[in-house]
Amino acid sequence: MRTKPVSRDSIFARTRDYFEHFAAATPARFAILIFAGFVLVFTAIFLLPISTATGEVPPLADALFTAVSVICVTGLATVDMATYWSPFGHAMIMLGVQIGGIGVLTLASILGLVISRKLGLRQRLLAASDSNPLRMNKGVAESQAVRLGEIGQLLITVALSVLVIELFIAILLFPRILAEGVPLGGAVYQSFWYSFMAFTNTGFSPTVEGIAPYASDYWFLSVLMLGVFLGAVGFPVIYVLMRNLRRPKRWSVHVKLTLATTLLLFALGGLAFFVLEFNNPRTFAGLDPGQRFFQPFFLSMMTRSGGFSTIDIAELNGSSLLVGDMLMFIGGGSASTAGGIKVTTLAVLFLASFAEARGNVAMEAFDRRIPGDVLRLAVSVVLWGATTVATACIILLQISGATLDVVLFEVISAFATSGLSTGLTASLPDSGVYVLAATMFLGRVGTVTFAAALAASQRRQLFTRAEERPIVG
Amino acid sequence: MRTKPVSRDSIFARTRDYFEHFAAATPARFAILIFAGFVLVFTAIFLLPISTATGEVPPLADALFTAVSVICVTGLATVDMATYWSPFGHAMIMLGVQIGGIGVLTLASILGLVISRKLGLRQRLLAASDSNPLRMNKGVAESQAVRLGEIGQLLITVALSVLVIELFIAILLFPRILAEGVPLGGAVYQSFWYSFMAFTNTGFSPTVEGIAPYASDYWFLSVLMLGVFLGAVGFPVIYVLMRNLRRPKRWSVHVKLTLATTLLLFALGGLAFFVLEFNNPRTFAGLDPGQRFFQPFFLSMMTRSGGFSTIDIAELNGSSLLVGDMLMFIGGGSASTAGGIKVTTLAVLFLASFAEARGNVAMEAFDRRIPGDVLRLAVSVVLWGATTVATACIILLQISGATLDVVLFEVISAFATSGLSTGLTASLPDSGVYVLAATMFLGRVGTVTFAAALAASQRRQLFTRAEERPIVG
Ligand SMILES: [K+]
Ligand SMILES: [K+]
Repeated sequence: MRTKPVSRDSIFARTRDYFEHFAAATPARFAILIFAGFVLVFTAIFLLPISTATGEVPPLADALFTAVSVICVTGLATVDMATYWSPFGHAMIMLGVQIGGIGVLTLASILGLVISRKLGLRQRLLAASDSNPLRMNKGVAESQAVRLGEIGQLLITVALSVLVIELFIAILLFPRILAEGVPLGGAVYQSFWYSFMAFTNTGFSPTVEGIAPYASDYWFLSVLMLGVFLGAVGFPVIYVLMRNLRRPKRWSVHVKLTLATTLLLFALGGLAFFVLEFNNPRTFAGLDPGQRFFQPFFLSMMTRSGGFSTIDIAELNGSSLLVGDMLMFIGGGSASTAGGIKVTTLAVLFLASFAEARGNVAMEAFDRRIPGDVLRLAVSVVLWGATTVATACIILLQISGATLDVVLFEVISAFATSGLSTGLTASLPDSGVYVLAATMFLGRVGTVTFAAALAASQRRQLFTRAEERPIVG
Repeated sequence: MRTKPVSRDSIFARTRDYFEHFAAATPARFAILIFAGFVLVFTAIFLLPISTATGEVPPLADALFTAVSVICVTGLATVDMATYWSPFGHAMIMLGVQIGGIGVLTLASILGLVISRKLGLRQRLLAASDSNPLRMNKGVAESQAVRLGEIGQLLITVALSVLVIELFIAILLFPRILAEGVPLGGAVYQSFWYSFMAFTNTGFSPTVEGIAPYASDYWFLSVLMLGVFLGAVGFPVIYVLMRNLRRPKRWSVHVKLTLATTLLLFALGGLAFFVLEFNNPRTFAGLDPGQRFFQPFFLSMMTRSGGFSTIDIAELNGSSLLVGDMLMFIGGGSASTAGGIKVTTLAVLFLASFAEARGNVAMEAFDRRIPGDVLRLAVSVVLWGATTVATACIILLQISGATLDVVLFEVISAFATSGLSTGLTASLPDSGVYVLAATMFLGRVGTVTFAAALAASQRRQLFTRAEERPIVG
């Protein structure tokens, strides 16, 4: 595979060469191993007595579930996150979501680097924001191996952008938390906690009462929405917006498609929750007119996969839960901290459908033609997501005996790393906890690596067969 | 559009020309109007006092729902079908399901004729069984208008095949019903009733006790399964099997794909029901070993969209209900009496996914290459089905306040014209009844006409745009 001669004999160089070779040969497996490694390390950390508030060793199921939920930035919990863990545990949680969030942002781009074997970070980042890094240049010679140094460079660029955004969000939150009467040190800590949890789309709260003190505060909730939105649109979009915010003509089709679909889903979701919960006294019916209109849109943004909630999700009508299921399953943007099948995947399916209805040969969006092979990838991602969710639902329905309303919501929340919960997670037996942990892991790692794995396997066919078409529909 | 000079002035010829022109210009609208017309006629019939057992005029909601359920061969009911209607009403129900069943079988082929404007019935039928009649020859000159006489010829061929099969099924059922102690006339009537209801995939019962007397009878249930299977594979497959049963080399990819997917789903569904209901005493747990294994497979075949049931569907575990949802949503073969998105649609999605995973340029099945544009049609059908089901679910959850388990099952049963019921249909208020009736109609007419409408709109594009791909997954 690699043509470079082995010229250095140091253990470091050998190890690096081995990793490079492994990453280049099976990038998807490489990504899965990295994620699994972090999950194991954090499970071990959470099993330490100094991680819990009581100083006892927690049950394995709880430690593993928390590790998966943190590394996959999901936000579901089998224990009360605010009281169960010690300050050390909380510090590890903050570290874990940063690793998970930045890891997810970079992994897609790294896989793109590995697969396309193209050098040049800046060109690559521009390309990543301009077109799909996972699939372009698939005909490029395989001899250009990616150096780990490049991956480091990419990691630094992503991490710096993330920290700048998180600092910005924390600064916006800080005065409001201080005004609530929280002491200075605690206010700084909580500002960064909420900023991390919003941008990484995790959704854990640092205190028992959670965001309840701010449940009707337009400023606090709007900043949270902004953080969740920035995390959920994905790094390629953020990169372009940071450079060309005022020059929409330079935005790529991916940026336009992601923003348009995200905003459309946000608006439709908010309107649906507004209408469906209009007369529900346990959620929004008792609020004043402003809140009654604002809160459904906050909920809509949180399904992107923010995971914060001002209401008891279990009190939503069944119809709203189903709307939430759909929004969470779609999730956020590609290469983002949000989960789900991704907004562009949905957009491509609809573009294909529109092209079919209009009788156009090619899919089109924003005056650009979209290659037909993207559709096949989109279909694969959706099939794989639907299969994962259906399998997990069937097993959990059998284990828990709960209704489909709550099981489907919890499973999709886990798969799409949304973290909103009807309360089922906390009441599951250990077997159910492991199933949900597996769903979180598959949802997080799968959406990152699945498309890469498929794209990486592209090869030429040696012959074609006689054409024939089955009936469809 | 039509180049033939108007040479005859009789009202008959003018009317025929008008219909031909309308059918050729907007085939999907033509099909929808035909179905809607039959629904209106049968609603009027069921509103007559002579249709009900009591001689009273039934509520409009019940008459309309029954008419839709009969014409769409769904099998859901808001009233007790065995006792509510008079003998005249029952005769109309038998007539209605025959019209609906034969109508569905022919409509796809008729639309194919209209769209491709090709003469020659025999070639067309062979072509229909050999490849997709809705989409082949889309480049053929539009001047060859289809004559209504041709449609009549096709109708006769389909109707004859249907009657032969139904007679065959009835003969197989007759001795068993006679052995149950039913008088001769009643046994003949019930044999034909069950035969019609099985082959048309409707699932209404002629008596109050339904199929309860035969609930553990291997012969009776197996014949019902055969009838449902033949109705569900679709006319193109039946036509090929009748001519080339022992020469599988002559079977088209459509035939092989339909049979393989149908049998695979049947086996997987049966196994899933067997495992998930193994310890459920309200369904299969109390049965003897043979029945315990046989009944789950009977249930699996009935989700194709047979609609007969030996158990109370509401007593199934939530996990089994979800498996049933998935099987019903997929449904049967194209141009069949079964509903759903069709097995070949699912197969094409998976073939696309396999091709993507293997890095093949084209989808392949049974040593044949499948054109990529079929995928776009499959995606459109699934998106449209999912949107219909989701919308109906959200509205019915809001109206009924029932759990998602039963609402999703009932909505998919209506959409896929399956007719299996948890009992929700009978307890819905009028508004819910109308929503479910609309779902049945959209499910039946949509799957028949949607693909045709899309295929018909194919047109050339005058220019192509610069290529660009968004990130997916
Ligand atoms: K989350
Ligand atoms: K049926």
